[in-house]
Amino acid sequence: MPATKDKPSRPNAFYAQSGGVTSVINASAAGVIDACRRHRGRIGKLYAGRDGIVGALTEDLIDTSKETAAAVRALKWTPSGAFGSARYKLKDLEKDRAKYERLIEVFRAHDIRYFFYNGGNDSMDTAHKVSQISDQMGYHVTCVGIPKTVDNDLPVTDCCPGFGSVAKYVAVSTREAAMDVASMARTSTKVFILEVMGRHAGWIAAAGGLAGRKAGEAPHIILFPEIAFDQARFLARVKECVERYGYCVVVASEGTRSADGRFLADMGTRDAFGHVQLGGVAPTLATMVKEAHGYKFHWALADYLQRAARHIASKVDVEQAYAVGRAAVELALAGQNAVMPVIVRRSSRPYRWTIGSTDIADVANKEKMVPRHYITADGFGITAAGRRYLLPLIGGESYPPYKDGLPDYVVLRKARVRRKLKTNFVI
Amino acid sequence: MPATKDKPSRPNAFYAQSGGVTSVINASAAGVIDACRRHRGRIGKLYAGRDGIVGALTEDLIDTSKETAAAVRALKWTPSGAFGSARYKLKDLEKDRAKYERLIEVFRAHDIRYFFYNGGNDSMDTAHKVSQISDQMGYHVTCVGIPKTVDNDLPVTDCCPGFGSVAKYVAVSTREAAMDVASMARTSTKVFILEVMGRHAGWIAAAGGLAGRKAGEAPHIILFPEIAFDQARFLARVKECVERYGYCVVVASEGTRSADGRFLADMGTRDAFGHVQLGGVAPTLATMVKEAHGYKFHWALADYLQRAARHIASKVDVEQAYAVGRAAVELALAGQNAVMPVIVRRSSRPYRWTIGSTDIADVANKEKMVPRHYITADGFGITAAGRRYLLPLIGGESYPPYKDGLPDYVVLRKARVRRKLKTNFVI
Repeated sequence: MPATKDKPSRPNAFYAQSGGVTSVINASAAGVIDACRRHRGRIGKLYAGRDGIVGALTEDLIDTSKETAAAVRALKWTPSGAFGSARYKLKDLEKDRAKYERLIEVFRAHDIRYFFYNGGNDSMDTAHKVSQISDQMGYHVTCVGIPKTVDNDLPVTDCCPGFGSVAKYVAVSTREAAMDVASMARTSTKVFILEVMGRHAGWIAAAGGLAGRKAGEAPHIILFPEIAFDQARFLARVKECVERYGYCVVVASEGTRSADGRFLADMGTRDAFGHVQLGGVAPTLATMVKEAHGYKFHWALADYLQRAARHIASKVDVEQAYAVGRAAVELALAGQNAVMPVIVRRSSRPYRWTIGSTDIADVANKEKMVPRHYITADGFGITAAGRRYLLPLIGGESYPPYKDGLPDYVVLRKARVRRKLKTNFVI
Repeated sequence: MPATKDKPSRPNAFYAQSGGVTSVINASAAGVIDACRRHRGRIGKLYAGRDGIVGALTEDLIDTSKETAAAVRALKWTPSGAFGSARYKLKDLEKDRAKYERLIEVFRAHDIRYFFYNGGNDSMDTAHKVSQISDQMGYHVTCVGIPKTVDNDLPVTDCCPGFGSVAKYVAVSTREAAMDVASMARTSTKVFILEVMGRHAGWIAAAGGLAGRKAGEAPHIILFPEIAFDQARFLARVKECVERYGYCVVVASEGTRSADGRFLADMGTRDAFGHVQLGGVAPTLATMVKEAHGYKFHWALADYLQRAARHIASKVDVEQAYAVGRAAVELALAGQNAVMPVIVRRSSRPYRWTIGSTDIADVANKEKMVPRHYITADGFGITAAGRRYLLPLIGGESYPPYKDGLPDYVVLRKARVRRKLKTNFVI
């Protein structure tokens, strides 16, 4: 606990968005803002970092109290990171001590006693370290993580806000594209491949499996990072599908890899596609199919479209994103430190969930893969258990308002907080 | 006119879907079916071709009277070609005379006197030729085209059903992805490229321009097939945008080409991407940017997702698609032959349209490009005039009903009509 003389009567709070943004991370921001406003008696100002943690390091803070109630409401239906997010990982306390100390210095200068960090595994690690160093430095900061990741790979929590909406986008898009292909397969495209995100965990690819309900319905093949890619088996299955159903739809994770761990996007044709980070699994698979079977093919790479698609967000996901934001503030005010709110599933049918919490250390730097029993024995589909887990997460629609045919997304005012420190920090 | 003895009291009608399908072509089908049902006294059965014109050639007809009213209603919100479509072009009367004669033979066998052909330029050419040969063969068939193409490249009609929904998808997706990129550009991706359809005409790429309203808003660069690609100018503009706005969003038509007419997708890295039909403009551009400036980039290729995206269809588009289907039947019953209903724009603000008609010969095999005055002087954006044309076409939302988190699209019964001919036809 901090020395009494350091403690302002109404300490301020700091919120930052971290890592890849999602279509609902701003709903979490709205939850944090609403909760802080509700607890005006105990929390002074809520500041946000411009471009995430970078804003804290450079003392570039945004005063969220300058945002109107209407703007905060609109955050619930606005994708992207409204305050700016950053891919900026703080390393070990030893290696990056100066950065951690700078954070505390900025927090101290602005009477910030609450740190809400909205991100994934790496960010939870950072929040954990900040909570440690703040006490070492004699300036206690309550650190609460807020889960966010389209990859759905955080442990402990039943699911991650951000995932449900990508899952819905991928399931809907797969169904739509599959119907398109099916209706023209006789004289046109026979094989369609959709490449989706998920470098290490195949949750997003798995969600594509929701597009079909009965045997024979697309997608006919899902490629998971968790299942070693076997070219001969893949090509045989494609052929079997085309011969049986007239067409074949494949949903492939960008993290599809062979038994020796090599990413498919790294094989053969990689260089021509530019940087490997950008996928290339779909065209690689398409080329294999063309060479082996001669089928006409098409492929799509949704990339950022999938994680920004607020227009087709899952209502459940939006509600959970908002709820974890609000819960983070409640946890902090209840005296919890170095924790993260989690989604707890009470039942799948009907879907019932509530908010719990976990130690942030149990989440930091850990990844949750798709369990083997969610994947069919042949490795190409999802099981009934996988479907039972996934289906509730895409439940309900939550449409943004439209103006002139386009979603009416908000751009915040982002009023700058006057700086107090004389030193600059170059990131 | 046919001899009286050939004329049944209630002749039958035939409807076929042709070419690349759209998210609203089934709304046109619903318009045709509804109108035929309304005119039961004058039209007997409405048959549909299984897999388009292929179904007529092979005498594989679907009896639409077996579809329930609920199923027909659901066609209005179901993407793809519900009866199956075909990429199957009939050539000149001389070259493909046997096929045309086979068509008339099938029509005669099933008392079909009305032919409704739902497609693009090629299909209008076919419909025109069928109307000619039917009279030459002494079996009069009234041929009415129904416009459909995501490319919006049919002349005479103000716009083409199918385009408005792709336009909306591209505009919405561009806005969403651009917000995502903008919010992370400081530490992550600086350049994002979305490749869209439109091999010859840049209408779909132009629609991406609706995502931004003010100067500096994304997309910062649009690449049209109508404007010769100039690598140096493109790279200079990318740099300028990144330096001024912190990021750069590009919407590139798959038909982007250089002054000598070579498609960008055909240049340099083509082979590695497999078949050229599948795009490759986005990765080609991305590689250029990376090599010239070293910026971190991402790209997306929406492919079929854009034309199948009924979940984000334009309400105006759905209504127009339905209206041209219904109008085709009305035109035929009014004694018009070799015509096509068209969309006539009465005013842009407020948007008012009505249905007119044109001779099918004026549409066949012609392409309407984006006029130069819709494109900014620098060739990288759309003008106020272009915006005035495009904006009404993405107006309004028309959501499908959902079940378990997914759109509740219909799959038709597609009851087969008993064959009457002894001869088979191999396509």
